[in-house]
Amino acid sequence: MKVQITASDLIQMEQRKRAHLINSVGGFKSVCLIGTVDKIGQTNLAIFSSIVHIGANPPLISFIMRPDSVERHTLANILETGSYTINHLNASIYEQAHQSSARYAKEVSEFDATGLSAEYKGNCKAPFVKESNVQLELDFKQRIDLTINNTIMIIGEIKNIYFPEGCMQEDGFLDIEKAGTITCSGLDSYHLSKSLARLPYAKV
Amino acid sequence: MKVQITASDLIQMEQRKRAHLINSVGGFKSVCLIGTVDKIGQTNLAIFSSIVHIGANPPLISFIMRPDSVERHTLANILETGSYTINHLNASIYEQAHQSSARYAKEVSEFDATGLSAEYKGNCKAPFVKESNVQLELDFKQRIDLTINNTIMIIGEIKNIYFPEGCMQEDGFLDIEKAGTITCSGLDSYHLSKSLARLPYAKV
Repeated sequence: MKVQITASDLIQMEQRKRAHLINSVGGFKSVCLIGTVDKIGQTNLAIFSSIVHIGANPPLISFIMRPDSVERHTLANILETGSYTINHLNASIYEQAHQSSARYAKEVSEFDATGLSAEYKGNCKAPFVKESNVQLELDFKQRIDLTINNTIMIIGEIKNIYFPEGCMQEDGFLDIEKAGTITCSGLDSYHLSKSLARLPYAKV
Repeated sequence: MKVQITASDLIQMEQRKRAHLINSVGGFKSVCLIGTVDKIGQTNLAIFSSIVHIGANPPLISFIMRPDSVERHTLANILETGSYTINHLNASIYEQAHQSSARYAKEVSEFDATGLSAEYKGNCKAPFVKESNVQLELDFKQRIDLTINNTIMIIGEIKNIYFPEGCMQEDGFLDIEKAGTITCSGLDSYHLSKSLARLPYAKV
């Protein structure tokens, strides 16, 4: 026998409790730090758990942001420079990464506030997180305003991928568990992974 | 020293290899079975790893689908009935769930093909997966065509949530690890989770 939470239970639920529940029910999530910089060199770092694969060719990734939150610095910087980085979390940095969600003022860099290190590579304007094992450089491609609740979807194209040696398998699969990448659930729960199996391509 | 894969490496990469790589680099993903039915009662079940939280009030969840795949039965059914279910995977059913991604004909139900059981509850037209521990009932809300690569984003509102007793914490957090929910990476890799910690709300 399962517990049932109905739509009317949800409406009556205290706001913070509902946020915890609804953020948990979608399953485990990708959790990454997005690094950006503004025109005058002020860096920003923010944690996101709404990263989704959009397509492999061209290589596109999206994430969702709320316009009324600290994440607005991320949006402003992406629109200003066209550049951002996505950096996977690992067990050594998830507490610092979580701390980046505090509402720091625009003039405070979350790199300084959390003790994570900005790393610059190639021609990428935006900073990477040095302590992150899997790092992506993205170019901003499209902003889609989700009118249903005023959130914003950002789509970017992957320009460079960085990961530890020995993590990519012959067929292109990147073993992010081997790279130490972690996952999250809800608003504040972090989890290691333990591989069950890779399964063959399914045929009728 | 990290391995670097550039945009030009990606362009030259064999198509299947690029698909494996790009599907891996976004981090761990939610992986769920979406259950639907058409007007004449033909059920469909399809596996998705693109589920994302859109908002808690109203409670909204999205997923992305390719229009040119087996997933089109899911889309057609959602548009026909306005109803669908999202069902978490666990270690007992992930092989059957993965098998649902084979290109079955419209007249074949993936419930029959995989041996998973359709379950009907309340007024929900769409079938749940009986063997799934965390189940959501959704009403279709919005379709957004992503013109950048012809994928489709579907946004739905959560109407009912079902989960095992003892899994919801006092503050609303649903302990999906306790419920046996698993995560995935890439196109075919399935993983258990192992909790690191829940962290307190971050303050400056």
